Amino acid sequence: MKKMDYQNVKGTQDYLPNAEIIRRDIRRTLEDVFIQYGCKPLETPILNYTELLASKYGGGAEIIEEMYTLTDRGERDLALRYDLTIPFAKVVAMNPTLKMPLKRYEIGKVFRDGPIKTGRFREFTQCDVDIVGVDSQIAEAELLVMALDAFNKLDLPVAIHYNNRKLLTGMLTVFGNQKEKMNKVILVLDKLEKVGLEAVLSELNEQGLSAETITMIKQFLRDEENSSFDYFDSYAEQNEDVRQGLNELKELQSYLTFLNVNEHCVFNPFLARGLEIYTGTIYEIFLIDQSIKSSIGSGGRYDNAIGGFIGTELNVSTVGISFGLDVIFTAVSSIGKSSKESSTIDYYVIPLGTQKESLLVANDLRKKGFKVEFEMSKRKIGKALDKANKEDIRYVIIIGEDEVKNNRYKVKDMISGNERVESFLFN
Amino acid sequence: MKKMDYQNVKGTQDYLPNAEIIRRDIRRTLEDVFIQYGCKPLETPILNYTELLASKYGGGAEIIEEMYTLTDRGERDLALRYDLTIPFAKVVAMNPTLKMPLKRYEIGKVFRDGPIKTGRFREFTQCDVDIVGVDSQIAEAELLVMALDAFNKLDLPVAIHYNNRKLLTGMLTVFGNQKEKMNKVILVLDKLEKVGLEAVLSELNEQGLSAETITMIKQFLRDEENSSFDYFDSYAEQNEDVRQGLNELKELQSYLTFLNVNEHCVFNPFLARGLEIYTGTIYEIFLIDQSIKSSIGSGGRYDNAIGGFIGTELNVSTVGISFGLDVIFTAVSSIGKSSKESSTIDYYVIPLGTQKESLLVANDLRKKGFKVEFEMSKRKIGKALDKANKEDIRYVIIIGEDEVKNNRYKVKDMISGNERVESFLFN
Repeated sequence: MKKMDYQNVKGTQDYLPNAEIIRRDIRRTLEDVFIQYGCKPLETPILNYTELLASKYGGGAEIIEEMYTLTDRGERDLALRYDLTIPFAKVVAMNPTLKMPLKRYEIGKVFRDGPIKTGRFREFTQCDVDIVGVDSQIAEAELLVMALDAFNKLDLPVAIHYNNRKLLTGMLTVFGNQKEKMNKVILVLDKLEKVGLEAVLSELNEQGLSAETITMIKQFLRDEENSSFDYFDSYAEQNEDVRQGLNELKELQSYLTFLNVNEHCVFNPFLARGLEIYTGTIYEIFLIDQSIKSSIGSGGRYDNAIGGFIGTELNVSTVGISFGLDVIFTAVSSIGKSSKESSTIDYYVIPLGTQKESLLVANDLRKKGFKVEFEMSKRKIGKALDKANKEDIRYVIIIGEDEVKNNRYKVKDMISGNERVESFLFN
Repeated sequence: MKKMDYQNVKGTQDYLPNAEIIRRDIRRTLEDVFIQYGCKPLETPILNYTELLASKYGGGAEIIEEMYTLTDRGERDLALRYDLTIPFAKVVAMNPTLKMPLKRYEIGKVFRDGPIKTGRFREFTQCDVDIVGVDSQIAEAELLVMALDAFNKLDLPVAIHYNNRKLLTGMLTVFGNQKEKMNKVILVLDKLEKVGLEAVLSELNEQGLSAETITMIKQFLRDEENSSFDYFDSYAEQNEDVRQGLNELKELQSYLTFLNVNEHCVFNPFLARGLEIYTGTIYEIFLIDQSIKSSIGSGGRYDNAIGGFIGTELNVSTVGISFGLDVIFTAVSSIGKSSKESSTIDYYVIPLGTQKESLLVANDLRKKGFKVEFEMSKRKIGKALDKANKEDIRYVIIIGEDEVKNNRYKVKDMISGNERVESFLFN
């Protein structure tokens, strides 16, 4: 390796302090909201048995192809987790004494060795909340209100699009789509926003759907009435899945209306979500200003996965939501609000030949709870004040021999220019 | 895989909510202290090029043997980071415009495929602070005071043992030890506390040290005077390394005395630290009650590593400290203080056939900043109150149809048994 010729692994990156301060604020804001909503933390390992992550209740074929795999010194087949859901399902399966309902959150790194696109990384951070053991739509309502609360605190206006997998698969069944093609067709529909109607129809054709089915899907996708629940009433009479999905949607909407957040939530009958595991409500969160096209959070109900892991025939009601720290960071950075707030320093103590005494002052202020930067290099005063200005540090304390002799120091307010004098017993 | 027959990968573990709440508190306490001391956050990837981590400025032969390695789909040779120091050195080398001095912290997972002992994991969390660009011992003083502050906030009484590599290698040189055996001998001395004097001497014999050298080392290790700096004055005249090391130790001690923390700091002339990279001051932090024998934090000065990465002949002054989250968690758990504090819930809202209305109350309290658990399952009141008691939730609000009709609810204080009535506009 040539010296200084370092680079990061493709799909990974360093976050330098100015960026990481913003990420830390986002992470803490999300965590504080999760805690406020009664969520409990869980921490699962990044290293897992390949067998677990590749199991049929895992993330689906597309994700499993992107797993990083390795072998440890005991010749075990291991993989890096690609999401936080499977490790969580494993924890629930391994710990039958966990009290239900369980509302847990986890914030952690996940890894996918996939194609790199703008804003997609191979190593990234997910912030997940899942609720196990509640079959009513109140769980979905709780998560969506929590998400709105979180994005409100992050100053990011968002809209939540929601739909129901039962409604969608029921409609596709009514249109003559075969069960074994359902997942493929849903993956195609998931691209509607991105690639447009014509591309979707042509892909459905490639999937071998009949012309009649495609015509009906096309009609459905273009119908202006389809964003009203009434549109589905007649289909509900023909298909049990449509009926159930519609009922769940109505229940969810009634909560959202009652909680007065319905204006931020949009029923989108084509919302599909790429993953196979979903069984009911699904949702994606978008920025209102559309500065980022892809969703900045998403989730849904997946009642089969944990039951599958446990090996019970019974469903284990589970509904989750996942926030992408990296995409939220991109969104927050682009509004630029944090540049001013990125200074976390209250006082900047600069010694002039008085290192010991100045450190004493710094530590005294820290004991009082302040955030204090102590100048350890021999920066000249001018340069130090430049630094204070650049980093938006409000209060500067310069301590020379006179200050030490007289047992007091001046605090300079960099905004007003005023100074105040504090007594301090140096000797 | 048999159903329900899951286990975690050897050397990894899940942290269930009760444990993770404690870990979260520790992580936040440490991070808050780091911020108070003017440290800036940095985030580096877990995935790195093997070439970087295995370079000669890396963690040393013992650690490199324990690297997890893997290959990505682009056939790149990758490894999981085994510490946070090398990735940090890489960041400094890659970003020449970073302003010095730089005080950065990082909290993150590291991986070592090593032998499992009690309390040692293969996937674990380190919390590191490093200061680049300060050659005076004021940097060490700042880090040690910060460490004492952190452990004070964690209610863990600790003692910091410190020494200086120059002093130690200088003394070994005076005793006739050859330069090329220095690292090996230091690794052997590092085990003194653990294996005792006789075992150390016999290992030194195996290393091929002369009988005369071993006799002098033995005398040094047993001498009761050696914990005083005066002991080294005569050696300082014979050896430049001893002289420099002694001067640095005296400088550090003068800061510690002035800052009034010297009583928590112990000069230990045999402290060796296993890693090769150290060039000056070294320190390890121990619990006063010795409930855990190994150190719960450690670090030192390593002035060559970053320069080595950058490819400059000049030293780049660097001094760091690393806290082991997992061992601190073990220590905090064992004092049991957190069982009572683990409840983070202020209010527990229990609906009696009033889910929507109750969720409205829960969200109202959350908007006011409280942490609120909302009962989503159909738990009976008795069971719900049991849960409140078990989880030390202080205030319980039960909302039935009467409450909704009368636009008010009662808040029950689970400690005093008192109730107060709050008005709330349900309709």
